[in-house]
Amino acid sequence: MRIVVANINTTENITRAIHEQALGAAGPDTEILPVTPTFGPASVEGNFEGHLAAVGVIDRIIAIEEPFDALVVAGFGGHGREGLTELLDVPVVDITEAGVQLACLLGRSYSVVTSLHRTVGQIRDRLRLAGLDGRCASVRSVGMSVLELERDTARIGRHIVQEAAQAVDRDGAGVVCLGCAGLVGLAEQVQDEVGVPVVEPVAAGVGLTETLVDLRLRPSTIGSYSTPQRKDIAGWPLTRS
Amino acid sequence: MRIVVANINTTENITRAIHEQALGAAGPDTEILPVTPTFGPASVEGNFEGHLAAVGVIDRIIAIEEPFDALVVAGFGGHGREGLTELLDVPVVDITEAGVQLACLLGRSYSVVTSLHRTVGQIRDRLRLAGLDGRCASVRSVGMSVLELERDTARIGRHIVQEAAQAVDRDGAGVVCLGCAGLVGLAEQVQDEVGVPVVEPVAAGVGLTETLVDLRLRPSTIGSYSTPQRKDIAGWPLTRS
Amino acid sequence: MRIVVANINTTENITRAIHEQALGAAGPDTEILPVTPTFGPASVEGNFEGHLAAVGVIDRIIAIEEPFDALVVAGFGGHGREGLTELLDVPVVDITEAGVQLACLLGRSYSVVTSLHRTVGQIRDRLRLAGLDGRCASVRSVGMSVLELERDTARIGRHIVQEAAQAVDRDGAGVVCLGCAGLVGLAEQVQDEVGVPVVEPVAAGVGLTETLVDLRLRPSTIGSYSTPQRKDIAGWPLTRS
Amino acid sequence: MRIVVANINTTENITRAIHEQALGAAGPDTEILPVTPTFGPASVEGNFEGHLAAVGVIDRIIAIEEPFDALVVAGFGGHGREGLTELLDVPVVDITEAGVQLACLLGRSYSVVTSLHRTVGQIRDRLRLAGLDGRCASVRSVGMSVLELERDTARIGRHIVQEAAQAVDRDGAGVVCLGCAGLVGLAEQVQDEVGVPVVEPVAAGVGLTETLVDLRLRPSTIGSYSTPQRKDIAGWPLTRS
Amino acid sequence: MRIVVANINTTENITRAIHEQALGAAGPDTEILPVTPTFGPASVEGNFEGHLAAVGVIDRIIAIEEPFDALVVAGFGGHGREGLTELLDVPVVDITEAGVQLACLLGRSYSVVTSLHRTVGQIRDRLRLAGLDGRCASVRSVGMSVLELERDTARIGRHIVQEAAQAVDRDGAGVVCLGCAGLVGLAEQVQDEVGVPVVEPVAAGVGLTETLVDLRLRPSTIGSYSTPQRKDIAGWPLTRS
Amino acid sequence: MRIVVANINTTENITRAIHEQALGAAGPDTEILPVTPTFGPASVEGNFEGHLAAVGVIDRIIAIEEPFDALVVAGFGGHGREGLTELLDVPVVDITEAGVQLACLLGRSYSVVTSLHRTVGQIRDRLRLAGLDGRCASVRSVGMSVLELERDTARIGRHIVQEAAQAVDRDGAGVVCLGCAGLVGLAEQVQDEVGVPVVEPVAAGVGLTETLVDLRLRPSTIGSYSTPQRKDIAGWPLTRS
Repeated sequence: MRIVVANINTTENITRAIHEQALGAAGPDTEILPVTPTFGPASVEGNFEGHLAAVGVIDRIIAIEEPFDALVVAGFGGHGREGLTELLDVPVVDITEAGVQLACLLGRSYSVVTSLHRTVGQIRDRLRLAGLDGRCASVRSVGMSVLELERDTARIGRHIVQEAAQAVDRDGAGVVCLGCAGLVGLAEQVQDEVGVPVVEPVAAGVGLTETLVDLRLRPSTIGSYSTPQRKDIAGWPLTRS
Repeated sequence: MRIVVANINTTENITRAIHEQALGAAGPDTEILPVTPTFGPASVEGNFEGHLAAVGVIDRIIAIEEPFDALVVAGFGGHGREGLTELLDVPVVDITEAGVQLACLLGRSYSVVTSLHRTVGQIRDRLRLAGLDGRCASVRSVGMSVLELERDTARIGRHIVQEAAQAVDRDGAGVVCLGCAGLVGLAEQVQDEVGVPVVEPVAAGVGLTETLVDLRLRPSTIGSYSTPQRKDIAGWPLTRS
Repeated sequence: MRIVVANINTTENITRAIHEQALGAAGPDTEILPVTPTFGPASVEGNFEGHLAAVGVIDRIIAIEEPFDALVVAGFGGHGREGLTELLDVPVVDITEAGVQLACLLGRSYSVVTSLHRTVGQIRDRLRLAGLDGRCASVRSVGMSVLELERDTARIGRHIVQEAAQAVDRDGAGVVCLGCAGLVGLAEQVQDEVGVPVVEPVAAGVGLTETLVDLRLRPSTIGSYSTPQRKDIAGWPLTRS
Repeated sequence: MRIVVANINTTENITRAIHEQALGAAGPDTEILPVTPTFGPASVEGNFEGHLAAVGVIDRIIAIEEPFDALVVAGFGGHGREGLTELLDVPVVDITEAGVQLACLLGRSYSVVTSLHRTVGQIRDRLRLAGLDGRCASVRSVGMSVLELERDTARIGRHIVQEAAQAVDRDGAGVVCLGCAGLVGLAEQVQDEVGVPVVEPVAAGVGLTETLVDLRLRPSTIGSYSTPQRKDIAGWPLTRS
Repeated sequence: MRIVVANINTTENITRAIHEQALGAAGPDTEILPVTPTFGPASVEGNFEGHLAAVGVIDRIIAIEEPFDALVVAGFGGHGREGLTELLDVPVVDITEAGVQLACLLGRSYSVVTSLHRTVGQIRDRLRLAGLDGRCASVRSVGMSVLELERDTARIGRHIVQEAAQAVDRDGAGVVCLGCAGLVGLAEQVQDEVGVPVVEPVAAGVGLTETLVDLRLRPSTIGSYSTPQRKDIAGWPLTRS
Repeated sequence: MRIVVANINTTENITRAIHEQALGAAGPDTEILPVTPTFGPASVEGNFEGHLAAVGVIDRIIAIEEPFDALVVAGFGGHGREGLTELLDVPVVDITEAGVQLACLLGRSYSVVTSLHRTVGQIRDRLRLAGLDGRCASVRSVGMSVLELERDTARIGRHIVQEAAQAVDRDGAGVVCLGCAGLVGLAEQVQDEVGVPVVEPVAAGVGLTETLVDLRLRPSTIGSYSTPQRKDIAGWPLTRS
C-alpha cells in the first residue's frame, strides 16, 4: 500500500525526520510518500499558525497526482484532518489521535510532552474533541520551539526526559506520548530513562493507518464528514499546476 | 468606536445582511465596518470550508488599514477567532459564543437552529470547546444550505419556526439561538410564533463587543493567545496590496 | 433605560461602592437605581447567609414602585436570580455569570479571586449550574471577609494581586474575574500588576444588561422560569408599605 | 433518638402525610418530631418559592426548643439543607439526596417522577450539585401541582404509574424515586404496577439519618459548611417567641 | 434480620475485624453472618486479585444454606457486587458505595484514604462507575499493603492520619472515607486527630443495608441486573458440598 | 509474531469463528493461536458471567506454554484485560477498546450494536472507563443471545442491519462497531446495507495488537498495572497440568 505522510509545516528537515520515523514503523509492503506544504509557517505553534497549516496541508494533498491508500497528518495538535476526511475517500489519521490511542492501550492514564507552553491548551482542546481526554493525566511542555527541538536533539532529550519523569511522578501517568512530530530516536531514550512506555506519534499514525487499510475501512461519508457541496471557492487551490 | 464585522464567506449579499443586523444592534456612537474575505468559499458548511474560511477571514482582517476597536467574526460555528485573537490587541468576538452567552442569560437551557445537518456536529464541538455546551438542549438543522437561506427568507422562516418549536417542545429549550449569520428579521418572526426569546447572533456579537470596548477589556496575551513568534510563512499574506 | 442594581446585603457602604462601579460602566442614557435590602445579613459569605440574601433581595425588588428595564443582582456567588426571573418580565442578570462570560471572551481559561475560603465551594457550584465551569482554571480566596475588604482596600489589593498572580502562574489562568462586588478600583490595579485582563463583575453585569435591553431580549417564560402559580404565601412580602 | 422531620411548605396536611411516612420508616426507638414552617408558600414549585421555603424552614428549625439528634428536610428538590448544615451540629439530610442514594443501591440507573413540569430543571440541578446525576436516566413530571396531588391520590397514582412505566421502557431506568414528599402509599402501588423498586424519599431520609446518628457521624465543620461568622442580620429570625 | 457480611479475601483475621466493625454498627435485632471465601487471594490489591476475589465471594455466597435478608460485600474498591445482585433477590451493598454515600451527606467533598498506591486507579474507576466521583476531592494511599495494615494498627494509624490531614489541607476534602475494610478503631482516631468526620465503610454498609431491608426495598430485576439465563457453566460452582 | 486470541466463553464454535476473523485480519507473518477457557459459562451476557469469564480467561492464558508476543481478549464488553495486563509483559488488547478506537478514526461518532439488552449497561460502563464514551452515539441491542447469534447468522444479520440503520438515522452515528465477537461476515453485510463503515472488533484487536508489537510497545508496569505482589491464592490456578 502507499501511505502519504504529510508534514504540516514547510520545513523540509522536519519532513525528512518524519519520513524516517514513518519508514521505521511501516510494514515491508508499505510505501511512504512524504509531502511538505508549499504554503504556511516554518513550524506550527499556536492557533494562527494552525489555521494556516490546515489550509497548507489540504492544498498540498489535493495536488498529489498518484493514487494513495491513506493519509497520515503528521502535526501534533491537529491540523486539517476533518477537512481532509471530507475530501478524500481513504483513511485520514491525525497523529495526535493515533499516538494517544496507543498510549491508552498501554496504561491507565497517559501524559503528553510537547514543545512550547503556548500549545498546551490547543492540544488539550484537540484531545477533548477527539473524546480522548478522559485518561489524560497531563499535557506538559519543555518550553522549546519546534525549530529548536529540530536543531538540538541532545538538549531536547534531557528536557523531555525531565518532563516525562514529572508526568509519571506527580501526575500519575503510566505512559507518555511525545507531543511533537519528527523527534527521531527520542522515544527510545525517554523510555529507557523514565521506565514507562513512550509512544512516538508518527509511528503510531502509520501503524493505525496500515490497520485501517488492511481491514478495508474507509471514513464515514454521512453527516459531519460528508463530501462538501460544489460551490465557488475564491483563490483555491492555492497551488495550480 | 469602530467595530469591524467580518463575514467569513465571499458572498457580498451575506455581508450586506450581516451589516444590516450589526447596525440595528450597534449604539449611536458605534461605526460598523463590514468586510468580506477575498479568499475562500461562497458559504461555509463543514470542516473543509471552515478551514479555508478561517484563513480567508484572517487574511482580510490583517489587510485593514484604518484603526479599529474590536472585531466580530460573523460566522456561526467558529472560524479563525483564536488565531485572530493572537494577532490583534483588540477584542475578537465569535458570534457563536456571543449568541449562546446571551441565550444562557435568558433561560435555563437553549437550542441552536442552523442550516444544513452537516454543520450540527461542528457547532456542537465549537460549543464544547467554548465551555458553553452544559446548558445546550439541542442543535437542530432545517436541512437548507446557507445560500438557499439567503435566497428564500419566507420559506426558511417556516422551517426555522418548525425546528424551534420542536426544540422547545421535545428538547426542553427555553431559548433559541439562530445558528447562522445574516438571517435579517427572522429572530422576531420566530420569537413571535414560537413564544420564546430568540437570539440573533450577529446582534449579540456587536452588543458584547461594545461592552468589552466600553469596559476597556482586551484579550489575554499570555498562554494560548500570546502573540506568535516571528517566523517564515510561505505564501502569506494571500492578498498583498 | 433604567437599570436596578441590587446589593444583596444590608450594608449601605457596599451599595454605594456597587453604585459607583455601575455608573462607571453604564452608557450615557442609562439610569442606575441602586437598592439595598432591608432584610438579611450585613454581608453574605456562605449558604445560610445566601439563603437569607436571596429572600432579602427579592423582597426589596418587588417593593420598587417605579418602572425599570432590567435588574442586576450584585452579589458574587448567586443569590435569588432564578426566583427573580420568574417574577419579573425584564432581564435579570447575576454578576457571577456576567463576569465569567466576559472573562471567557478574553482568554482560554479564567480564575475567580474571592474573599473568604468558605465561599469557594459555593462559587464553584454556581459556575457549574451556570454551565460556565468548563474553562475555570481555579477559584481562589484571599482569606478576608467582605466587610474587611470594604474597610481596607489597600491591603486587600495586595492580597488579590498575590492570588491572581498564582492563578496565572500555577493554575494557567489567562484572565481573572474578581469574585466580590464593590471592590472599586481594584480591577485596574490587579490588571496592571499581574498583566492579564481583570473583569470587575458589576461592570460586566451592567454591560450585558444594557445589551439585553438594547436587543429587546426578555427572559424565557416557559419551563423553569415560568411565572409562579398564585397561592398563599404566609408572611410575604416581608416589607409592607 | 429524636429526628425532626421538616415539611418545607406551610400546609399542615402535607406535614401530616410526611409524618406518617416517617413513622413507617423509623425504628422502634426513634421519635419523629414533625414541624411546619410559619413563613413561606403553601407548596413549593419553582425557584421563587424555593428561595422562600429555604428561609421558612431554617426559621422554623432554629425555633425548636427541645434537643434533637438529626434533621430531615422533607422537600424534594432541595431547600435550605446547606444553610441548616452550617447552623446545626447534627446530621441534616435532604430527602432528594437520600432517595436517590438508595435508588442507586438498587439498580444501574434511576428516574425521578415529580409533580409539575416546571420543577424538572430544578431537580436536575439539585442532583447535579449533589453529584448524583451520573446514573439518572430521566426526571419526569405528571403535570399536577403538589396541592392537587395531595387532594386526589387515586388519580395521581395512575399518572405516576404511567410516567414511571415510561421511565423504565423509554429511558432505561431500573429504579424509580418519587420526586415529591407526602405521597403516602404510592410507592407500593407504583412498585406493584410497574415492577421495579420504588423509593419513597421521606422514608429514605429517615433511614439514612438513623444510620448517621447510630454511627455517631456529624457534618463537617470545615470549609463550605463551617459555622457562619457572627454578624448583624436585619429582621432575623422571622419568628420571635 | 440476618445480614451476611462477606470478606472478599481468604484471611480469617480480616473477616474477624470486619465482623467486629459490622457488629458495632448493627441494630439490636440484626444478626451478622460473616463469611470468608475459600477461593482467591489472601488480600486484594489490584485488578488480577480483584477478578479472583469477585469469583471467590460469589462462590462462597451461593453456598450459604440458611436464609438471609441482605448482603454486604466488604472489600473496598468493588468486587462482585453486580454479579451477586443478578443472582440474589435481596439487597447487595458494596462498602465502597455505602461509605462514600454517607461521606457525601456530611460535607461538600470527600477523600478516600486507602492502602497501596496501586489500588488508587481502581478505586477511582469504581467511584466513577458508581456515579459518585463528582464530589471526590482525592484518593490517597499510605503505601502499605492490606496485610501490613492488619498487623501493625498503630503505625498505620499515623500514616492514615497524615494522608487524611493532607486530603483536608491540600485537596479541600471536608470528610474522609477509609478505603479499606477491617481497620477497627481507626475511624475514631483519624476523626479526633484530623478534625473532620471519618466514615468507616463496613459500618456504613451495614447501616445502609439495614435501611434497605427495613424499607422492604429489593434490587431491580430488569435490565442490567436481571437474572442470568440458564446455561452451562464449566467448573462452577468451585465449591461443591 | 505469535498472537494469542482468547475466546472468553467455553463454546468451541465461537472460538472457531473468532479464529477465522483473526486470520482474516492478521498479516502474513502473524501466527494466531486461538484458546478457549475450560472454566466459565458457554456465553457471557451480564455481570455474573463476566466475573466468571474474567477468571476463566486468565486461568487459560497462564497455562499457555509456548511463548507469544501479544494477547487479544475477544469478548466484547471487557473481561479480565486489566488483570492480564498485570500478569503479562506483552500487549493485552481488549476488542471493545480496539473496535471503538478504529471507529473513532472513521467518523465523528459511533454506535455499538450488541446481542441482548442486558449487556448494554455493561458495555456503556466499559466504554466510560476506557475513556471512549465521549463520541458514543448509542449502544443498541438486537435482543438475541450470543448463542442464538451463533446459530442463525442470516436472521441475526437482518436484526443487526435494522439496529445499525436506526443508530445512523436516529442517534446520528457515522460508524458502527459490532458489539459481539465471532459474527463472521456480518461487518461486510451491514456496511453494504446501511452505508456506513462497520468495524468488526476481533479484526480491530488483531490489527492494533500487531501495531503494538511492531512498534515494540509493552504495557506500563508502574501504578495500576504493576505486577501483583507474591501472596497465597487459594485454589489457584484452577487448571493444573
